[in-house]
Amino acid sequence: MSPFTGSAPRTREWEHLRLTLDGAVATVTLARPDKLNALTFGAYADLRDLLAELSRTRSVRALVLAGAGRGFCSGGDVDEIIGATLGMATDALLDFNRMTGQVVRAVRECPFPVIAAVHGVAAGAGAVLALAADFRVADPSARFAFLFTKVGLSGGDMGAAYLLPRVVGLGHATRLLMLGEPVRAPEAERIGLLSQLTEEGQADAEATRLAHRLAAGPALGYAQTKALLTAELDMPLAAAIELDAATQALLMNSADYAEFHAAFTGKRPPAWQGR
Amino acid sequence: MSPFTGSAPRTREWEHLRLTLDGAVATVTLARPDKLNALTFGAYADLRDLLAELSRTRSVRALVLAGAGRGFCSGGDVDEIIGATLGMATDALLDFNRMTGQVVRAVRECPFPVIAAVHGVAAGAGAVLALAADFRVADPSARFAFLFTKVGLSGGDMGAAYLLPRVVGLGHATRLLMLGEPVRAPEAERIGLLSQLTEEGQADAEATRLAHRLAAGPALGYAQTKALLTAELDMPLAAAIELDAATQALLMNSADYAEFHAAFTGKRPPAWQGR
Amino acid sequence: MSPFTGSAPRTREWEHLRLTLDGAVATVTLARPDKLNALTFGAYADLRDLLAELSRTRSVRALVLAGAGRGFCSGGDVDEIIGATLGMATDALLDFNRMTGQVVRAVRECPFPVIAAVHGVAAGAGAVLALAADFRVADPSARFAFLFTKVGLSGGDMGAAYLLPRVVGLGHATRLLMLGEPVRAPEAERIGLLSQLTEEGQADAEATRLAHRLAAGPALGYAQTKALLTAELDMPLAAAIELDAATQALLMNSADYAEFHAAFTGKRPPAWQGR
Repeated sequence: MSPFTGSAPRTREWEHLRLTLDGAVATVTLARPDKLNALTFGAYADLRDLLAELSRTRSVRALVLAGAGRGFCSGGDVDEIIGATLGMATDALLDFNRMTGQVVRAVRECPFPVIAAVHGVAAGAGAVLALAADFRVADPSARFAFLFTKVGLSGGDMGAAYLLPRVVGLGHATRLLMLGEPVRAPEAERIGLLSQLTEEGQADAEATRLAHRLAAGPALGYAQTKALLTAELDMPLAAAIELDAATQALLMNSADYAEFHAAFTGKRPPAWQGR
Repeated sequence: MSPFTGSAPRTREWEHLRLTLDGAVATVTLARPDKLNALTFGAYADLRDLLAELSRTRSVRALVLAGAGRGFCSGGDVDEIIGATLGMATDALLDFNRMTGQVVRAVRECPFPVIAAVHGVAAGAGAVLALAADFRVADPSARFAFLFTKVGLSGGDMGAAYLLPRVVGLGHATRLLMLGEPVRAPEAERIGLLSQLTEEGQADAEATRLAHRLAAGPALGYAQTKALLTAELDMPLAAAIELDAATQALLMNSADYAEFHAAFTGKRPPAWQGR
Repeated sequence: MSPFTGSAPRTREWEHLRLTLDGAVATVTLARPDKLNALTFGAYADLRDLLAELSRTRSVRALVLAGAGRGFCSGGDVDEIIGATLGMATDALLDFNRMTGQVVRAVRECPFPVIAAVHGVAAGAGAVLALAADFRVADPSARFAFLFTKVGLSGGDMGAAYLLPRVVGLGHATRLLMLGEPVRAPEAERIGLLSQLTEEGQADAEATRLAHRLAAGPALGYAQTKALLTAELDMPLAAAIELDAATQALLMNSADYAEFHAAFTGKRPPAWQGR
């Protein structure tokens, strides 16, 4: 995505989520704590649109996705989404499911690392949002449940049947998506679902610390690392190696690469610019 | 695969394996215990044909694959297969190896979960049959040996070089396929090769319990979960997300999805129909 | 690659690495111990050319890649490579980065197993060389650092963003490539990055032992196992199964397959020829 903008205005206020900016770190909080942050049509749409807008803004260099209250996100709201979809026509059902998938694509394709800060439940769409993030920072209360079959749907929702085997392997992914049972933090760590396990209650703080560290670093290098990890899952080896070569040749002209060498030679820490 | 049938008759009796049906659960038992259930040409052909027939029968909703006697399956019979292939012409060799691969494709493509119940040895083709299953339920006596190089062949047999890296990662897969040494239950669990480790002697019982649980559940949701996991290993992210969207839109018109909502609202357990 | 040769002469002497041959086992030692075996332009070129030459020589059946002195390889030399690239034109930058990628392709595509013997640091390009090997035999002092972002570049270097997710899963790979921090032997073993963890100081000896074992074995079976593992990462299931069938049909005409059966029947160990 590109920082070039045209006539489209920016969104003044996000009604269905809470956005805070602290320097180059954006924090998006799912904030319906009385409903365990269950997602609504508006929340999905806001996530899709917000990630697109932030992707055009070079000022954001890392994003934390967190949940307010007792858990991260309980997934699609049983009444407001499941109930509503029962009466929808075919085209509207497809529009809805495409929208939720677009949120996952936006998480994978935005040019900054996304860090899911997970405490308590991450269920259904909440589990897939965390799965799509680059980092999952969780505390011991975290539990992930890909519970789609428990509502009569396919476990492959929002790219879960693509992403989960690539994170934890096909055997664990089959078990998790087919049975829909909760995976608690110790098992999640053991099978490779967690990036970092924190002390109880420290997921948000540690995720924010990591975001600030990334935002202060060589942001272009991070952005390209993310883009290549995402793209090369779908590329053969020879093409991936060619993409790496072109990318490194490009970045060897970057300010940060020159800065590393100057700092190393001058025995001082590098002052990264992210360009 | 489809439940629509034409003129082709169904097989009256399976000579090379034992089939039992209990409600919607089929159990296929490799039953040459004096030979550690070594596979013959007839057994491969029966597995291929049986899975195709069951795939056209909506009455089967889960399948257990088990071995009688001291182990699961010792692989292709040294005399009846290895000896016989030494005298075969090129076209017959290709026919044979294609047939074994078709068994694995049938396991991956049948519209119900396949649960391998493993105790004792699962070697050669026996290890790949278990690998191709959706669940591997094993007891502590289980040991997997992808021993193809030990007979002078390639470790990539029946899709093993495709499936194993996607289950346990490329590093472990290389070691297992190249060296052909046995992987015992604790290591198998550690590297993600097991779905469930049971008490000694309980693999068959636990696999059957899981099969009945799956058969009593939202079978169409399970079938689509399996189909999407299989298909999306070979699809790029954007296409996978589109497939998920179309699949969920379809299932949102299913009886089971409506049933979930009615049961949830009525505070009762859902009565799944699998459609 | 092929043993057929034309007019091109063989290299008389490798100036930038140390090559020793012991029967069918080649050992390539990175030998600039005063610089922790930092790689130079010449070392990359020699690795690329040596692997191509050895791939045309059926006399080599296993290769050990080791580092002299305190560690395995600290990656590209800060002065001789990073400093030099700062003044390079675009075409030269691309040439350089393509060359490093060609080394990784050569490791993946050579027709014999490559065993990285890792003690101490394996950083940057050193970490990717080890990652590209078929086996990573490491002692407790080993630490891997994919530190490309720490010099302002992309973590996807020499195929790392392709290979690492396929070895340790996307979650761990993202963390390792994005942050560039060292992974010590116990974590490396836990996430599937190691093939074998040895006693302190035994990585070279154990890697050499494994190489001799492989060299004495059914080398054609090993070569095809490696080729299929590499190729089938990029193939759909049905095509992979077809490739397996054709490969096994081919090898069922090999001397080693007949030898296995004769040895088994004669109750003696097989005398492998590797053809």
